[in-house]
Amino acid sequence: MEINKNRIYRIAIDAMGGDLAPDNEIQGAILASKNKKFDIDFEIIFIGNETQIRQSLTQYDTNGLRYSIVHADETITMDDDPTEILKKKPNSSLHKGLQYHAQGYADSFISIGNTGAVLSVATVTLGRINGVSRPTIGALFPTIGKKPTLILDVGANIEAKSRFLYEFAVMGSIYVNLTQGIENPRIGLLNIGEESSKGTEEIIKTYDLLKNSNMNFIGNIEGRDILLGSADVVVCDGFTGNVILKFAESITGLLKTKIKNYSKSSIFKKLLTLTALPVLKNIFRDFDYQEYGGVPLLGVNGIVLIGHGKSSPKAISNIIFRAIELIRQEINPKIENSLSPKVMSNNG
Amino acid sequence: MEINKNRIYRIAIDAMGGDLAPDNEIQGAILASKNKKFDIDFEIIFIGNETQIRQSLTQYDTNGLRYSIVHADETITMDDDPTEILKKKPNSSLHKGLQYHAQGYADSFISIGNTGAVLSVATVTLGRINGVSRPTIGALFPTIGKKPTLILDVGANIEAKSRFLYEFAVMGSIYVNLTQGIENPRIGLLNIGEESSKGTEEIIKTYDLLKNSNMNFIGNIEGRDILLGSADVVVCDGFTGNVILKFAESITGLLKTKIKNYSKSSIFKKLLTLTALPVLKNIFRDFDYQEYGGVPLLGVNGIVLIGHGKSSPKAISNIIFRAIELIRQEINPKIENSLSPKVMSNNG
Repeated sequence: MEINKNRIYRIAIDAMGGDLAPDNEIQGAILASKNKKFDIDFEIIFIGNETQIRQSLTQYDTNGLRYSIVHADETITMDDDPTEILKKKPNSSLHKGLQYHAQGYADSFISIGNTGAVLSVATVTLGRINGVSRPTIGALFPTIGKKPTLILDVGANIEAKSRFLYEFAVMGSIYVNLTQGIENPRIGLLNIGEESSKGTEEIIKTYDLLKNSNMNFIGNIEGRDILLGSADVVVCDGFTGNVILKFAESITGLLKTKIKNYSKSSIFKKLLTLTALPVLKNIFRDFDYQEYGGVPLLGVNGIVLIGHGKSSPKAISNIIFRAIELIRQEINPKIENSLSPKVMSNNG
Repeated sequence: MEINKNRIYRIAIDAMGGDLAPDNEIQGAILASKNKKFDIDFEIIFIGNETQIRQSLTQYDTNGLRYSIVHADETITMDDDPTEILKKKPNSSLHKGLQYHAQGYADSFISIGNTGAVLSVATVTLGRINGVSRPTIGALFPTIGKKPTLILDVGANIEAKSRFLYEFAVMGSIYVNLTQGIENPRIGLLNIGEESSKGTEEIIKTYDLLKNSNMNFIGNIEGRDILLGSADVVVCDGFTGNVILKFAESITGLLKTKIKNYSKSSIFKKLLTLTALPVLKNIFRDFDYQEYGGVPLLGVNGIVLIGHGKSSPKAISNIIFRAIELIRQEINPKIENSLSPKVMSNNG
């Protein structure tokens, strides 16, 4: 895969994924096509119910959007069991889109549907990158600094095996290097104390693996270090990562309710709250996970990005740009170079 | 242990524990003595360096405070390894205070020092309640509702064995019932999805144990449910609990920094921020973990409460009241009744 300015990047989008599908997916694609940030041509392949997609398209000004439609009979919902989707719904937009990507008709696949389903079907359909034990899903957290922190894994792997955690660190380091331009991303191992003796046996083993790697490992970090931005990449098992991600996503809701209750108690307090709104909105924006444009599924043989089910058109257009960036940056050959057994034995 | 209005409750306080020891401990005890909330007599036993304690006492009005001092040569610091304290510092204020409690000279022991050290020394010195496999430390989280949620474990046990998690639920349920007056506290099992098939093998086993118990088990809950107050008691392994607790404690810091940076960018924004201060302070108060008066160490043969190293005098006085409440409520016989094998076989 070579970087070619004249190349057209083909992005397959699961048009049936989100809470407002296919409208938001279509609006997101249109928004991306109107953004001149990238001097790059791309085509969107909408995968899903053709009638619904065509109906939705008539509502918007698609001038300038290069697109095609691939019909898929079935739709995955949040209630579908990720492990049974391929058997029960072989013709889903999710499966069809990933097959398109696997066969090379699309350079990337995006979905804002059932995350577990994307993980499961993508792993089977695309396969793993040589050297990767388990694909992983990362998420970006706001920090007091200028750059967010990437936490991985946030739910793909609940087992905290040392080899898995080591691979998450390698993939996260490459991802942050490519997307944020940080030369040697600081890798932190999430733990319950700073000492190398802390944590489970597998975490202690991970500490040694990371310490002996050529990554910029800064040691164990604790829960409080995430928002402080002490590390660029935070490695943890998918159970802990998933709980923190969902906890963090709920903070804005708590704050908003508290503010509402406060403002309701008197007219004076209501006025105070109104005056405070610009400050408060500024704070909430940092906790708006949509700003970051989806989370990457790293370790599969493809460029797969997953967005929140409630992703706005703007969030979806951000995901599209992130996908194009990852294709251009050739992230997967870089991951393979760092993890494949061949390379490891060559390096000693 | 019978409830006796004329009884004097004797509370041993590790006077060398916190960041501002022994001043804050002494001021906290004085504050408690001046609070007429409880119609109860209590005596504080300050454990620590007698010279330092006496020196500090001269600075304050101790009129009305009933106290005694027990000298201890050694002080535990945050750098001491919890597992080696008894060997290396047998005469620490921590050990001496817990011995006093174990021997019945004090009805409770409080420390705002090294949490791991308190856990370790308390478990050895006091022993476990009959039927308890592992003592646990809980923490209260703010919610959008009126009552906080108790999460346990937050660091005492990083292994998520189903039996341990089940016992945490029993102890947490009793604690919340006694301290918050909730008749059948809602128990939630922290997980990465609502379905009973989610999580590790041990968590799936825990789900069954809780489902078949006579507790008010509401099923699996996710990270986002904590601040929503979906459960009164949230059960998890100490690794996940510790990470979330420290993450939650760091939220205020992020918010304050964001507000500061916002206000710095222009005079207008500075004025706006000043106007917003009352609203903001109101929000921050809910995230102030000191309001809740320390965290309980449940499962040991004693009433042990642990406070944050930065606990204010007010926080310390809250911990003293919480200790008295737990003594009066006879929490430990209730835990033993629910967990000891004898009772279990009696019930079938």
